[in-house]
Amino acid sequence: MASEFLFKERVRIYDVDAQGVVHYSSYYRFFTDALADWAVKEFGRSLSEIEKDVWFVTVASRAEYHSPAYLDDLLTVKVRGNVISKSAVQFDFEVLRERKRICDGSLVQVAVDRRKWRAVGMPREIVKKLS
Amino acid sequence: MASEFLFKERVRIYDVDAQGVVHYSSYYRFFTDALADWAVKEFGRSLSEIEKDVWFVTVASRAEYHSPAYLDDLLTVKVRGNVISKSAVQFDFEVLRERKRICDGSLVQVAVDRRKWRAVGMPREIVKKLS
Amino acid sequence: MASEFLFKERVRIYDVDAQGVVHYSSYYRFFTDALADWAVKEFGRSLSEIEKDVWFVTVASRAEYHSPAYLDDLLTVKVRGNVISKSAVQFDFEVLRERKRICDGSLVQVAVDRRKWRAVGMPREIVKKLS
Amino acid sequence: MASEFLFKERVRIYDVDAQGVVHYSSYYRFFTDALADWAVKEFGRSLSEIEKDVWFVTVASRAEYHSPAYLDDLLTVKVRGNVISKSAVQFDFEVLRERKRICDGSLVQVAVDRRKWRAVGMPREIVKKLS
Repeated sequence: MASEFLFKERVRIYDVDAQGVVHYSSYYRFFTDALADWAVKEFGRSLSEIEKDVWFVTVASRAEYHSPAYLDDLLTVKVRGNVISKSAVQFDFEVLRERKRICDGSLVQVAVDRRKWRAVGMPREIVKKLS
Repeated sequence: MASEFLFKERVRIYDVDAQGVVHYSSYYRFFTDALADWAVKEFGRSLSEIEKDVWFVTVASRAEYHSPAYLDDLLTVKVRGNVISKSAVQFDFEVLRERKRICDGSLVQVAVDRRKWRAVGMPREIVKKLS
Repeated sequence: MASEFLFKERVRIYDVDAQGVVHYSSYYRFFTDALADWAVKEFGRSLSEIEKDVWFVTVASRAEYHSPAYLDDLLTVKVRGNVISKSAVQFDFEVLRERKRICDGSLVQVAVDRRKWRAVGMPREIVKKLS
Repeated sequence: MASEFLFKERVRIYDVDAQGVVHYSSYYRFFTDALADWAVKEFGRSLSEIEKDVWFVTVASRAEYHSPAYLDDLLTVKVRGNVISKSAVQFDFEVLRERKRICDGSLVQVAVDRRKWRAVGMPREIVKKLS
């Protein structure tokens, strides 16, 4: 990715558990939203809609949690994408509240033929954008 | 529905908000799950899979909340379905913790032709089951 | 509410079901988010944080669905609040995609003493804002 | 953990995306639910309720996805817990549909003093159960 993408998201009541802090799984909601907005900005649609029959399937996800976030916090999510093989791309995320690092993580997605559910080469348009 | 269907669900951490009680929207999760298990029990699949091209689309939902529920509570959801027109069915739900009434609500679903997105007659199999 | 509040929300992948349209329950997510942003804008915090020990508890919810919405749609949610009793407020919502009416609904919330879980008078600040 | 814990969960409509397969983030819902039921079975309550002021906070999560799962699939989640330091425990999960491996992953949780948000020794009861 030539430059990193910045996405803003507010912590919602359904992100927060009975302890009053954001539940670990909600950071994947933030990653998902940030990635979706990056794709809409770059391609006008989601990655799975760029080429007919080529879907992007998540094969790995991870996150590490450094500091709690709270209801109504306005978080910034930084997204960076890198092509890691002919058919796979890795997205790295960093979640901040102002300058405080809250969480970082990543998603690995593979381009698959949606009928055969088998890895295929990524659409050129994506490779170009992420090189 | 000849008889009512009973469904059990445990309150999860993502159902509970920072106030420590189940969030109003999670009762729709319980309704959805109870309805899905009723359909699997009665038809072996979801309502939208019974007849090719006939989908069940929710056109109205409502709930009233009588008493709070808490993390790890084991709730009982009672489901009753009634055909209310040639193409519509109403499902009524009651959520209990032991004998305590926690919530009640309903969903109205309409059978639609999935291509034309227009109301059609309900599959016979469903009419029969709910009469 | 002197004037209505407008909130924008993008349809996310977790709002959409296997039929490719927004699931009925996700409209409550949009209502919740719109209400939260209205409260942050008007009071700088959520309704339950305005007065110590006074929480706003949802006692009724309803929605009617007029037209489907799809992945990545940018929706507008209009919010209007009205005081309906000494301790209750009703919020009405309308969800639009451009000028197309997608859904409308409402939430009724009651101010309760969080210890006794009993209705109390609403904070003046809220009554004033909604009159 | 002396033996592994088996948990059953049905794939719900809100777990499935527009591609008709379970969304990567829903596997964390399955992990969360399996862990909660394990705790209820072993201790009668959640880990954060065992000792006053000692909360279990997730500091890392990861999952790898091997094969897709579909609406109404009945999945089995295997849970194993291991004490990995004085204050940390790791839970490993494996998700299966019959004998087919669908996903595996893990959560690392740290016991913290909920006021100081600082790592503390784990409750003995948990150490004992996981040794």
